[in-house]
Amino acid sequence: MISISRRSAVEPFHAMDILAEATRRRAEGRPVISMAVGQPGHPAPQAALAAARVALEGGRIGYTDALGMTGLRQELAEEYRRRHGVAIDWNRIVVTTGSSAGFNLAFLSLFDAGDAVAIARPGYPAYRAILSALGLRVIEVAVGAETGYTLTPDSLERAQEEAGVRLKGVLLASPANPTGTVTTRAQLADVYAYCKGQGITLISDEIYHGLTYGAEEATALEIGDEAVIINSFSKYYCMTGWRIGWMVLPEELVRPVECLTQSLYISAPELSQIAARAALSATAELDSYKAACRANRDFLATRLPELGLPLLSPMDGAFYAYVDAGSLTNDSMAFARRILAETDVAVTPGRDFDPLDGHLALRLSYAGTMQEMIEATERLAKWLS
Amino acid sequence: MISISRRSAVEPFHAMDILAEATRRRAEGRPVISMAVGQPGHPAPQAALAAARVALEGGRIGYTDALGMTGLRQELAEEYRRRHGVAIDWNRIVVTTGSSAGFNLAFLSLFDAGDAVAIARPGYPAYRAILSALGLRVIEVAVGAETGYTLTPDSLERAQEEAGVRLKGVLLASPANPTGTVTTRAQLADVYAYCKGQGITLISDEIYHGLTYGAEEATALEIGDEAVIINSFSKYYCMTGWRIGWMVLPEELVRPVECLTQSLYISAPELSQIAARAALSATAELDSYKAACRANRDFLATRLPELGLPLLSPMDGAFYAYVDAGSLTNDSMAFARRILAETDVAVTPGRDFDPLDGHLALRLSYAGTMQEMIEATERLAKWLS
Repeated sequence: MISISRRSAVEPFHAMDILAEATRRRAEGRPVISMAVGQPGHPAPQAALAAARVALEGGRIGYTDALGMTGLRQELAEEYRRRHGVAIDWNRIVVTTGSSAGFNLAFLSLFDAGDAVAIARPGYPAYRAILSALGLRVIEVAVGAETGYTLTPDSLERAQEEAGVRLKGVLLASPANPTGTVTTRAQLADVYAYCKGQGITLISDEIYHGLTYGAEEATALEIGDEAVIINSFSKYYCMTGWRIGWMVLPEELVRPVECLTQSLYISAPELSQIAARAALSATAELDSYKAACRANRDFLATRLPELGLPLLSPMDGAFYAYVDAGSLTNDSMAFARRILAETDVAVTPGRDFDPLDGHLALRLSYAGTMQEMIEATERLAKWLS
Repeated sequence: MISISRRSAVEPFHAMDILAEATRRRAEGRPVISMAVGQPGHPAPQAALAAARVALEGGRIGYTDALGMTGLRQELAEEYRRRHGVAIDWNRIVVTTGSSAGFNLAFLSLFDAGDAVAIARPGYPAYRAILSALGLRVIEVAVGAETGYTLTPDSLERAQEEAGVRLKGVLLASPANPTGTVTTRAQLADVYAYCKGQGITLISDEIYHGLTYGAEEATALEIGDEAVIINSFSKYYCMTGWRIGWMVLPEELVRPVECLTQSLYISAPELSQIAARAALSATAELDSYKAACRANRDFLATRLPELGLPLLSPMDGAFYAYVDAGSLTNDSMAFARRILAETDVAVTPGRDFDPLDGHLALRLSYAGTMQEMIEATERLAKWLS
């Protein structure tokens, strides 16, 4: 009676499998340190928790409008004015159930089955899985030292030629996961112009905005109104488990996305929307979390190479170290499982991010505390020696 | 630079459009009574709110395992033992971000683009929208007095012949939205056997379980292990805005759904999972909400026909009256908008549920309070006269 679809044959998100294994070990009382998942060690800001508490006293937590609560949408627009000096009509902002919903809604509303969409390799694995479940053709474009670890008009042009396809979409993340690359405003403007010239829709994944360490942080909205912006409260705002994010859409895409979200999501969780709105005012607390990330980053940037795990890319933003484990293993998956089993440190195999070269790489999240970074690297040092 | 996909051309969920309009009017200070959305007037049970408060004190709300928190999955399995006397391995239970995620995951994991899936007409509009966005062929099977307002082997067989397709899936909801139909255990067993014989996967939408008024409440799990069960904390458990539900899957479907959910959802909101677990113990409070629904139902079952809105189906379960407005309008959409504009009562046009005959029907949710039912029908009586 059950037959399983072909399109569900997506690659597992190994980080989530490792999270599940880490949860099991922790339940057994083991001292697990998780560097596998991009999850801040800091809780949601106090202001967000307080707002949620008040809402719980108030009683009913219900459906909101499918596009999200007006107040939150308006304050997000205000935040773009404050942080980036751009004026965005709040009606173009859609509150989503995490950036996960944002990607799904963007892909569904922009692309039909068979369309080709370019993503960076290495890159966030859920892109590949969602695109492929939705029947889209994933064009992986290698990024490395020669492209500044980001997508460029040249690399996109070459990818179209090599694959013999016309791209319908380009997905660019800055800061990027797992490389930590921050694409400069000028680079982003080049890709924007290239896409516009080619009739390609640019999706700008900005979910790690707020977490950059010296590099300039540009939103595609500074360049023009025709890109689809995806963002989230999970990273800088420390609200992973609340499942809350947002999109900024070209005006003509708002209604199609509204109709899809009405049926696919109904609305984002109301309590999370209320808490997220309050989080927007928690800049001091969040900037101190960012400072902690920066300290973790500086520590790991020195310590990991000492352990025989040289960095594969600069750590300009987000909270990941992407390292070359090639001198220690040629099977990062088995290696990550052994590390977890033998040291109770959870790290993510590069396979998640790069189907071709990921067997030689690992990703370590430094979203946790300095104490965790120190303890985890001590365990690794001992285990490796 | 933006081109909108063909597959995003789904019908709006008019109830959500009406909700948005009702929200706007309420923000203007108008005395809106919403009977448009299936949303309990009762807040989440006290035990759920208390558990959420404790979790907020505790600090970090994070990602959970993609399949959900073990404790919640185990207690849901226990609940099946208690309520239905069936033993379900808790590993077959997947916690989802509302039943919305359940439908999306079921359709993606079971069906490939082009596959045909039968649903009842009238029926929940999001089925149609999600199926169509995912490239599936929607086979609408009319239900009415002659089929007991539910799908039957005969009607499914006829539908296959008429459409000239072999069905890959059948989606049956009991209690049903908008008709309130409760499919008996015997009827459900017939459909189950028919699907099994034909190699069709049965998806049993049981999200209104707990809200039946005298009729027997069977889960497909009592009949066999090969159906996909979808359920939710939104209705009986009064937790709409928390976006939390669950599926029970045939064993071989668990891993494909896990891989899809890792990328498409990461996990359901943790705070909602914690609150949902506590809600399972709130039977006394929830049964008193159910009693209130029953009183609303009895009131409307008499009052609506007096207003010239005769019932189109029995009100055996869920919390909807589906009524024939054909003596008052032949355009239920315009009619619903006028009712809202002129009486501040929000109701849903039948078009949401039935593309063919829905222009003559309205759905009124009686999930709210008796006071709202009385006030709303008084306004309607005055307006209609």
